[in-house]
Amino acid sequence: MDKPIRIIQYGLGAIGRAAARLVLEKKNLQLVGAVDRDPKLVGRDLGEVLGLKRKLGIAVSEKLDRADAVIHCTASKFEECAGQISEIACARMHCATSCEEALFPALRHRALAAKLDRLCIRHRVAAVGTGVNPGFVMDTLPVLLTAVCRRVDAVRVLRVVDAGTRREALQRKVGAGLTVEEFRQRVKAGTIRHVGLSESLAFVADALGRKVRKVNERLDHVLRADGRVAGVKQVARGGPLTLELQMYVGAPNPRDEIHIEGDPPLHLIMHGGTPGDIATPAILVNVIPRLVEAKPGLHTMRTLSLPHIT
Amino acid sequence: MDKPIRIIQYGLGAIGRAAARLVLEKKNLQLVGAVDRDPKLVGRDLGEVLGLKRKLGIAVSEKLDRADAVIHCTASKFEECAGQISEIACARMHCATSCEEALFPALRHRALAAKLDRLCIRHRVAAVGTGVNPGFVMDTLPVLLTAVCRRVDAVRVLRVVDAGTRREALQRKVGAGLTVEEFRQRVKAGTIRHVGLSESLAFVADALGRKVRKVNERLDHVLRADGRVAGVKQVARGGPLTLELQMYVGAPNPRDEIHIEGDPPLHLIMHGGTPGDIATPAILVNVIPRLVEAKPGLHTMRTLSLPHIT
Repeated sequence: MDKPIRIIQYGLGAIGRAAARLVLEKKNLQLVGAVDRDPKLVGRDLGEVLGLKRKLGIAVSEKLDRADAVIHCTASKFEECAGQISEIACARMHCATSCEEALFPALRHRALAAKLDRLCIRHRVAAVGTGVNPGFVMDTLPVLLTAVCRRVDAVRVLRVVDAGTRREALQRKVGAGLTVEEFRQRVKAGTIRHVGLSESLAFVADALGRKVRKVNERLDHVLRADGRVAGVKQVARGGPLTLELQMYVGAPNPRDEIHIEGDPPLHLIMHGGTPGDIATPAILVNVIPRLVEAKPGLHTMRTLSLPHIT
Repeated sequence: MDKPIRIIQYGLGAIGRAAARLVLEKKNLQLVGAVDRDPKLVGRDLGEVLGLKRKLGIAVSEKLDRADAVIHCTASKFEECAGQISEIACARMHCATSCEEALFPALRHRALAAKLDRLCIRHRVAAVGTGVNPGFVMDTLPVLLTAVCRRVDAVRVLRVVDAGTRREALQRKVGAGLTVEEFRQRVKAGTIRHVGLSESLAFVADALGRKVRKVNERLDHVLRADGRVAGVKQVARGGPLTLELQMYVGAPNPRDEIHIEGDPPLHLIMHGGTPGDIATPAILVNVIPRLVEAKPGLHTMRTLSLPHIT
């Protein structure tokens, strides 16, 4: 067997900790370091931080050490992450990031993405933004489906998540329990919003060779019986593409549903949906071997070879 | 825009003709030649052979000319196709083949596949076997789904095709209308059998890193009300993997259904299924740009970058 790929976990929030725990289960991967800037975590043993019953002999560090690849889970905005990913690339390590805007960074930050691409090429490493959404159900999966089509006229994706079955952070993120007034204030402040829906749409448009000049995104609340907010309905539209995300407590029939209008028309349903709390750490970990074998550069999920469990 | 990729269509059966017609619709591809050994076709204008109302100025030839890539649709057995694909590789052309066993040729012909791989590398071209089944619904698609899994315990795929809605050749292929005795004779003679189910299973097993020593394949008939054969039910099993293909006239609820048992469990249904008569030529054409950009060698659908409509 080949030597395991040595991994540093960068960012120890819920997704980062889940990714690190999963790395420990994989024979072809070896967890060798952890980075977090939180002073409450720095210096502690990673086993303890991950809630394991054993020490790992890995101290959480503020500083990036050496490994083969980094799983990066710190922020949603590409501008906030690009510096960290650059640092990772300069240290000659591959990087899988959960940064939502990194799914298709050219949408909002074309110049910055091109710069990071050149940096990756210079240091002969590969980087990609992924996750379950953005990263899989509303972008990579519908794009793959078009492989069996002669013609695609329109793509519609609907993701329905019952936020009541998800971690509390997600319920807060969708505004569950707020009054409509509180909800509106938070939308204004930008604290309620799924980041990455426009990036998913731009990714699909790009794969289809369509110029989408502007993605229209709209965010509405869904109400509970008592008049408070149950969660959100967020829709992105651009040309013949529509991505709709419903995330609220009590959403019936949770699912991921893809309609391809074309020849042939395709209608796919993932019943029960794809649970992000598990699936996002999983795809971050599973994509690592694909990065290691990829051409150097800043990738998207369609320029890597087929991702699958590692 | 880049120069179009110049294509030769090799093999002018139903799938080959459909692929050639589709190439004509694609701006990034240019049909420049056609090969078939059938003396009734040789020398005729391709436009006429394709049922178009115009001439294309391309004469069907017995001999392989020069292009960038070849869409190869002649036979199901890898042994029968390997010589032709070698010839294509030696002429420095990429090759997408509908040869069912080429989906995962290492299953039955490891040495021959390794030899063809070396030949492709020497001539700096890429080749792959693909189609809708094998090639997509029972192999590539379930493998991609595992990308969002922490753990996979078992994979079950069910493809139900109503042969009554498909081209007549398929109805004959599944034995529709035969007596049970006639059906058994044809099964014995090997003329009734979907080729590639074991290859799909071996492809999935390989992606999951599972050693499957032996694929068990079983073929049964499905009866009509009048006691004659309606079609086939074919099942391949190996370790925790089960692929079941039902193809018969009048099959209810046609669909492609994938169950991943694991964490998370996933349950996907493609309602109505993925019609092979359209989807196989489509994926053969759509995979061409992925081949052109790939590393040289004999690929599988999981070593190319994400296929999608071109």
